[in-house]
Amino acid sequence: MKFEDLIHQSGQWLQGEGSYGEVVISSRIRLARNITKIPFPQWAKKDDREKVLSLVQEAAAKSPSLKKSLFIRLDQIPLLDRQFLAERHLISQEQTRGDKDRAVIIGEKEIIGVMVNEEDHLRLQIIFSGLEFHQAWEISTKVDDELGKNLNYAFSSKWGYLTACPTNTGTGLRASVLMHLPALALSRDINRLLQAVAKLGLAVRGLYGEGTQATGNYFQISNQICLGRTEEELIENIDRVIKQIIEYEQNAKKIVLDKSKSETADKVFRALGILKNVRLISSQETIGLLSTIRLGLALGIISEKEVDRKKINELFIITQPAHLQKMGKKALTPMERDEKRAAIIREKLAHPYG
Amino acid sequence: MKFEDLIHQSGQWLQGEGSYGEVVISSRIRLARNITKIPFPQWAKKDDREKVLSLVQEAAAKSPSLKKSLFIRLDQIPLLDRQFLAERHLISQEQTRGDKDRAVIIGEKEIIGVMVNEEDHLRLQIIFSGLEFHQAWEISTKVDDELGKNLNYAFSSKWGYLTACPTNTGTGLRASVLMHLPALALSRDINRLLQAVAKLGLAVRGLYGEGTQATGNYFQISNQICLGRTEEELIENIDRVIKQIIEYEQNAKKIVLDKSKSETADKVFRALGILKNVRLISSQETIGLLSTIRLGLALGIISEKEVDRKKINELFIITQPAHLQKMGKKALTPMERDEKRAAIIREKLAHPYG
Repeated sequence: MKFEDLIHQSGQWLQGEGSYGEVVISSRIRLARNITKIPFPQWAKKDDREKVLSLVQEAAAKSPSLKKSLFIRLDQIPLLDRQFLAERHLISQEQTRGDKDRAVIIGEKEIIGVMVNEEDHLRLQIIFSGLEFHQAWEISTKVDDELGKNLNYAFSSKWGYLTACPTNTGTGLRASVLMHLPALALSRDINRLLQAVAKLGLAVRGLYGEGTQATGNYFQISNQICLGRTEEELIENIDRVIKQIIEYEQNAKKIVLDKSKSETADKVFRALGILKNVRLISSQETIGLLSTIRLGLALGIISEKEVDRKKINELFIITQPAHLQKMGKKALTPMERDEKRAAIIREKLAHPYG
Repeated sequence: MKFEDLIHQSGQWLQGEGSYGEVVISSRIRLARNITKIPFPQWAKKDDREKVLSLVQEAAAKSPSLKKSLFIRLDQIPLLDRQFLAERHLISQEQTRGDKDRAVIIGEKEIIGVMVNEEDHLRLQIIFSGLEFHQAWEISTKVDDELGKNLNYAFSSKWGYLTACPTNTGTGLRASVLMHLPALALSRDINRLLQAVAKLGLAVRGLYGEGTQATGNYFQISNQICLGRTEEELIENIDRVIKQIIEYEQNAKKIVLDKSKSETADKVFRALGILKNVRLISSQETIGLLSTIRLGLALGIISEKEVDRKKINELFIITQPAHLQKMGKKALTPMERDEKRAAIIREKLAHPYG
């Protein structure tokens, strides 16, 4: 795999497959790991960080799960490429800075990712399309074991895995989903629901992690606690809550169909009509309109034959600024981006089966 | 011709034909005439008005130009039908009241119309598609002569034709055009221009005559003065001013193309995308979006092959409330009207050549 290959493919997590794919875009398991006797990245010196890089690279080379993976030193690629990786959810916003000897390992179909020298030495993430925590957990355990064979993880029998931030200490596990909740958002029950979710020890964030807004009715929900429970318990807990939220969303959809089918159909078809014809469009408006179409698909107002969920999921990713510029093979002004974005959307939506 | 035939046809003035059809929807010549020795309608008694009706009906029956015309007593048709006629510009808002023994005569292709017992005993109007005052004047003279043979017009050698309102006395002629000036409206020069037009003795009104707003950048421009000049002079004057306005609009279009082609193309295609997909739409929004598409046609952003001007002109008329209800063959709630309007627009725009 080469870096440029990423431009012309999309991750498994965007395929619209897996359980409850209508509501849950993706499930992600993240494990925070550090190498013993090397300071956490924030306090590490250049030599320490370089050592982490080479140790991880070696361990990855020996891991069967990472055989066909791509190892990218983030300080050796341009900012645009780092932004491109962040837009794909392969690295964090923090990693886009490209300083401090950071790297990322990207596995086949972008299911496995390992951020190196982020907040912790290793941040292993597994993302799957749909609500698929068990599948993601299985793979994460496997990769964790494979890497652990060749890396001495910082581990305390009392505390568990040691991490830079104490909130991650213990299992080092964060399980999260990216959900699309347009009907709940319409019903205005969303805030009440999200408050309840927070009380259950889960955190709710927007599309791009902490501090970002819930654009287009997309929400990231993750566990807050890593300590005092087994990984399986943590996963069971969030899985149960997510299934509950899915049920609320499905009920909210029924209410939308009962109470305002015509108005909603109108909104959905207008969104489709605009996107099929648009010549200039901002990222923000794109997300809003795609979200409306996704609602239309979920409500059966438009059929998957007309626009499939995979295409909508992909459009969310490829219409972002760095993606547009990578596809356009040059830096684009905001106006040129709005033009390119519109062109890509039109092209994608012009062919129902394309 | 039967009344119901009107529903399935559209007047000649909507065909998008004639000179400068891009800017001038239609040209209209109106002549105000009264029958001598009968009080003007406002002061006339029932018997007087009935007498006018029968005199005019007889005269019309003898007029070759009105041979295939339809004579409709407005007090004998439902309000919805009167509203339908007003939406087609065949009768005035005043005539929709249906009281006071009013009638209308509608000629073939809706080119000739005669309102009876409106403000004057007769209001003869000739409407043509495009800037075609001379053609309209020729026909109006002919019909006027034909009717005048069998009616004693109130005429003073000093004042000319006598009318209920002194502003019409003299020639009784009003020449008006319905213009679409979207580029001038965008350039914001429109107000300055319209003020200049007013100083030239012309009146500017909205889509439905006096007191109505200039919705969708449509403007009616007409002469204010009927007295002290010949009909030919009055027509020459307005024709010259209209040609000047057309030139300003064409220049404004060039500026739009130079300065904001992308933004305008985006607006035009969005308007088309919305209208092709809409499920609920108000009359007001329809006019705005159709106006934008008409601008797109004029600028060459979309081609006549995709949507022709005739179709856009017709949609303006048939998406009005009374038309929707006549087509739907029943009274519709506002919500049902918005649905029906959307359905008709989608149907019309689905087939480029239909």
